[in-house]
Amino acid sequence: MSVKDQIREIIFEADTPAGKAFDVSLIVLILLSVAAVMADSVAPIHDRFGTQLYVAEWIFTGIFTIEYGLRLWCIQNTVLYARSFYGIIDLLCIVPTYLSLWIADAQYLLVTRILRVLRVFRVLRMVRYVGEAELITQALVASRRKITVFVFSVLALTVIFGSFMYLIEGRTNPEFASIPHGIYWAVTTMTTVGYGDIAPATPLGRAMATLIMIMGYGIIAVPTGIVTLELNEANRRRANTSTCSACSAEGHSEEATFCWRCGENMYKQTTTD
Amino acid sequence: MSVKDQIREIIFEADTPAGKAFDVSLIVLILLSVAAVMADSVAPIHDRFGTQLYVAEWIFTGIFTIEYGLRLWCIQNTVLYARSFYGIIDLLCIVPTYLSLWIADAQYLLVTRILRVLRVFRVLRMVRYVGEAELITQALVASRRKITVFVFSVLALTVIFGSFMYLIEGRTNPEFASIPHGIYWAVTTMTTVGYGDIAPATPLGRAMATLIMIMGYGIIAVPTGIVTLELNEANRRRANTSTCSACSAEGHSEEATFCWRCGENMYKQTTTD
Amino acid sequence: MSVKDQIREIIFEADTPAGKAFDVSLIVLILLSVAAVMADSVAPIHDRFGTQLYVAEWIFTGIFTIEYGLRLWCIQNTVLYARSFYGIIDLLCIVPTYLSLWIADAQYLLVTRILRVLRVFRVLRMVRYVGEAELITQALVASRRKITVFVFSVLALTVIFGSFMYLIEGRTNPEFASIPHGIYWAVTTMTTVGYGDIAPATPLGRAMATLIMIMGYGIIAVPTGIVTLELNEANRRRANTSTCSACSAEGHSEEATFCWRCGENMYKQTTTD
Amino acid sequence: MSVKDQIREIIFEADTPAGKAFDVSLIVLILLSVAAVMADSVAPIHDRFGTQLYVAEWIFTGIFTIEYGLRLWCIQNTVLYARSFYGIIDLLCIVPTYLSLWIADAQYLLVTRILRVLRVFRVLRMVRYVGEAELITQALVASRRKITVFVFSVLALTVIFGSFMYLIEGRTNPEFASIPHGIYWAVTTMTTVGYGDIAPATPLGRAMATLIMIMGYGIIAVPTGIVTLELNEANRRRANTSTCSACSAEGHSEEATFCWRCGENMYKQTTTD
Repeated sequence: MSVKDQIREIIFEADTPAGKAFDVSLIVLILLSVAAVMADSVAPIHDRFGTQLYVAEWIFTGIFTIEYGLRLWCIQNTVLYARSFYGIIDLLCIVPTYLSLWIADAQYLLVTRILRVLRVFRVLRMVRYVGEAELITQALVASRRKITVFVFSVLALTVIFGSFMYLIEGRTNPEFASIPHGIYWAVTTMTTVGYGDIAPATPLGRAMATLIMIMGYGIIAVPTGIVTLELNEANRRRANTSTCSACSAEGHSEEATFCWRCGENMYKQTTTD
Repeated sequence: MSVKDQIREIIFEADTPAGKAFDVSLIVLILLSVAAVMADSVAPIHDRFGTQLYVAEWIFTGIFTIEYGLRLWCIQNTVLYARSFYGIIDLLCIVPTYLSLWIADAQYLLVTRILRVLRVFRVLRMVRYVGEAELITQALVASRRKITVFVFSVLALTVIFGSFMYLIEGRTNPEFASIPHGIYWAVTTMTTVGYGDIAPATPLGRAMATLIMIMGYGIIAVPTGIVTLELNEANRRRANTSTCSACSAEGHSEEATFCWRCGENMYKQTTTD
Repeated sequence: MSVKDQIREIIFEADTPAGKAFDVSLIVLILLSVAAVMADSVAPIHDRFGTQLYVAEWIFTGIFTIEYGLRLWCIQNTVLYARSFYGIIDLLCIVPTYLSLWIADAQYLLVTRILRVLRVFRVLRMVRYVGEAELITQALVASRRKITVFVFSVLALTVIFGSFMYLIEGRTNPEFASIPHGIYWAVTTMTTVGYGDIAPATPLGRAMATLIMIMGYGIIAVPTGIVTLELNEANRRRANTSTCSACSAEGHSEEATFCWRCGENMYKQTTTD
Repeated sequence: MSVKDQIREIIFEADTPAGKAFDVSLIVLILLSVAAVMADSVAPIHDRFGTQLYVAEWIFTGIFTIEYGLRLWCIQNTVLYARSFYGIIDLLCIVPTYLSLWIADAQYLLVTRILRVLRVFRVLRMVRYVGEAELITQALVASRRKITVFVFSVLALTVIFGSFMYLIEGRTNPEFASIPHGIYWAVTTMTTVGYGDIAPATPLGRAMATLIMIMGYGIIAVPTGIVTLELNEANRRRANTSTCSACSAEGHSEEATFCWRCGENMYKQTTTD
C-alpha cells in the first residue's frame, strides 16, 4: 500500500486504530478552536489573552489547512471531493482566518467549524447514533413539501396580521413604527417566542393580539403533526417489512424469526421445490 | 377560438406557455406591489421615495384593475366569478388604493394582495405542493369542530383566570388594571407566548401564575394531538384513491369493497359487457 | 303534559322550538352579563356608566334567580340537581350579587360572577359539539394519571433548578431574591412562557438557563405525546356510538354485536312485543 | 424475626401498616423540611424566624441522619445500598446541613431532598401511578439516542446562529456583547422561551431572527414526534405482558399466539407433563 493510500485510510476511514485516533484528535481540535473563537469575542478575555488567542487561531488554521491539503492530495477524485458538501465545509472552515487579514471580524465566521464535528461523528461510525440521525433526517426530508407549504402560509398570515397591527397601533405606539416591525411582531407572536420588545398597547391592538395568539396556538400544532407522521412512517419502514410466506401476516417485530399468527418459520427456504 | 376564449385561457389556465408566463409575471407583480406597500410604511423610505412609491402603487393598481376587468369580461358566468371567494379577493386587492383617495392609510390594506400569491400558486398547478396543501387544509377542516370546542374552553378558562388575577394583583399592580387586562395576560400565558409586558408581582399572583402555566402546558398538547390525528386520517384516506364506478363517490376507507354511498361493489368488472 | 313538565322541557331540553329559543336567549344573557362584569372593572367605564351597569346587574341577577327557582321546582330530583356541578354553578352565579348588599368590598366578590361563563357550556351541551367535547374530555381524563406523574416530576425539577439558580444568581441579581423566586423563574422557563421579568444575568446563570431550556424542550414533548395517544384511543373507541337497548351502556368497539356490560344482543328487535 | 429484620421491613417495605405509616410520615417530613429551606431563603421570613428555622433544620437533619444510619445497618448488603442510586440520594439529603457549618449557603442544596419524595412514592407502591411513570420513563429512555442526536444538532445550530447574530448586531446592540451572549439568545429563541432580555434591534438582525424563529417552529416538532412514537411503542408493548414459557422472550405483539423467537405456542399447557 502506497503512502498516499495509507494517509487516505487514516484521514477518511475510522476502522484502523490510527484512523480512529486521527478522528478523535480532529474533534478535539475543532472544539478547541471553536471555543477559542467564542472566547476571543468576549471583551475582557480579548483584552487579556488577545495575542495568545490570535496565535492559537493561526496554529489551528495552519493545521486545518495542512489537513485540507492532504485530503485534496490523497483522495482519488480531487474535484469531486472539493465540490462535495463536506469538501466545501472543510474549505469554509479555514478561509475566514485568511479573510480576517483584510476584513475585520471575519474570523468569527470560524464557528461554522462546529459543522465539521457533525461530519466527524459520522466518520466515527457511531452506528446507532447515525441510524437515529438518519431516521430524523429522513422524516424531515419526507415532510419538506408539507413544511414548505405550511411556512409559506404562515408567512402570508404574518404579513397580513403585521400590517393590520401597524394600522391599529402605528399611530400611538412607536414600537409599531412600520409594517416590517408589525411583521416581526407577528412572527414572534405566532411562533410563541414572545420577546415583548414589541407589544400592543391599545385595547383594540390587544384584542387583535389575543386572536392571533389563539390562532397561533392551533397553527403550531401543524408542523408537530406533520413531523410525527413522517417519523412514524420512517420508523415503520425501517422495522420488519417481511411478510409471512405461509399466512401472509405482516407487522412482525424487528427480530422476529417466527410468524406471530401461524408460528411458521418465515425464513425457511420456500424456493427449494 | 374567439379572442375572448383565448384571453380566458391565458388568464385562468396555466397549461399553455402564454398562460404560464401570465401567471408567473402576475406573482412577480403581486410580490413587488406588496414590497412597495411595506417599504412605503417605513418613515425614512417614505420621506425619500414617497413620490416614486406613490406612482408605482397607482401603476400596479391600474394593471390589476385591467386584469380584474378582463377576468369579469372573458369568463362565462360573470356573476358567479364576482361572488366567488377568489373573485372577492381579486376585488379587495384593488379597492384600497381607490379608497386611499378619501381615507388615509387605507393603502396599507393592500398587503392582502399577498393572498393572491397563494391563489396563483394553485393555478400554476404545482401539483405535488397543492396535494400537500390540500392534505393540511383537509386535516384542519376535519378538526374544526374539535378545535372550536377547544378554543371555547380555553377562552372560558382565560376569562376565569384573568378575572382571578385581577382580583389578586389588581390593587397593587397597575399592569392588571381591569379584567380585560387580566384576560389578555391569561391568553399570553396559556399560549406560552409570554411577552412580559404584564406580569404578576405579588407572591400569591405568582403562585397562581405558576399553576396556570403548568395547566397551559398540558392544554397546549390538545390541539397538537387533534391535528396529528386528523392529518393521520387524511393521509390514510388518501391511500385509497379508487372511485366508485357506479356513483363516482370518493373517500372510501382503505379496505372498502362496497361503496359507502350507493352500496355498489366497486370491484365488480364493469368493463366486460 | 302538566305545566311543570312543559317548563322542564323548555328549560332542560333543546328539541322543541321553545326550548331552543330559551337556550339561545340564555346564552345571550350570560354573555351580556359577563361582558357587563368585565366592563365594570375598567375604571373609565365604571366612572361613566357605573349606575347603569349596577342596574343591569340586578336585572340579570333577577332573571337568573327566577330561572334557578324554576329549575329547582320543575326537576324531578331537586336535591340531586342542587348538588350537581351545574346546579352549584347556577347558584354561584347569583349569590355574589346578593352578598354584595352586606359585605363591603363586594366588587371583588362580584368578580366570581365571571364563573357564569361556565354556564354557556351547559347550554352548549345539547348540540353536536358535545361529541367532540366529550372526546377531548375523555382523552384528558384517560391521561390524568400520566399527566399527574408528569406534573409532579416537572414540579420537583423546577424546585431543584430554581434553588440552584438562587444559589448561582441570588447574590448579584436582585430578581432572584429567594428560592420561590427561582422556582417561579424555573416554571416560566420550562413551560417556554418566558416573561423575562426574571432573567439570569451572570455567565454561569445563563449557561445553567441554557441547559434548563434545552431540557424543557424535550420535556414539553411528553404531555403532547400522552394526549395524542389518548385522543387516538378515545377516537377509536367512539367509532361505535350505539347504545345497548337493555342496559344503555356505551363505548362498544366498532364491530360489537353484543353489549360488553350485559351481554345483550344490541341489534335484536326490542320493539316488536 | 430479629429486630433488624423488623426494622428493615418497616423502612424498606410498605406492605405492613407500620411500613406504610413510616413512609407517609417520611414524605410529610421531607416536604416540611423542603418548605423550611425555601422559607429560610426569603429575606423577611429569615429575619423573623431565622433561629426557629435553623433549629428545625437541624432537627430534620438529625432525624434523616438516624434514618440513613438505620438503613445502612439493617440492610443485608450495606455497600450495595450505599453505592446505589437511592443510597447516594439519601446521603446527599443530609450532607449539605453539615457542610453549611463551613460553607455558607450550602444548606440551600437541601432542596434536593425533594427527590426523595419521588422515591417514597415508589416504595408506597401506588401501583397504577408507578406503572404510568414507568411508561413515560421507558419512552424517554427509548428515545434517548434520538434526543441526543437532536440536542447536538440544535446546539450546533445555536452556536452558528448566535455567532452570526453577534456579527450582525454586536457593534450597535450592547445586548449582543459576545458570541456566548448570541448563543444564549439563540437558545432562548429556538426553544420559543423568548425572555426578551436580549433582542435584536437592527433591521437585518430582526430579519435573521424571523428566519430563526420560523426554523425553530419546525424544529420544536421533532422531539414531540420522537416522544409520541416511543410512548406509543411503550404502550403497545405493555399490552401483551406474557412471557414465552419455552424461551422466556418478552415483547410479543398484542394478538400473538406464537413466540416470535422460538415459534412455541405460548398458550399450550406446559404444566401437564
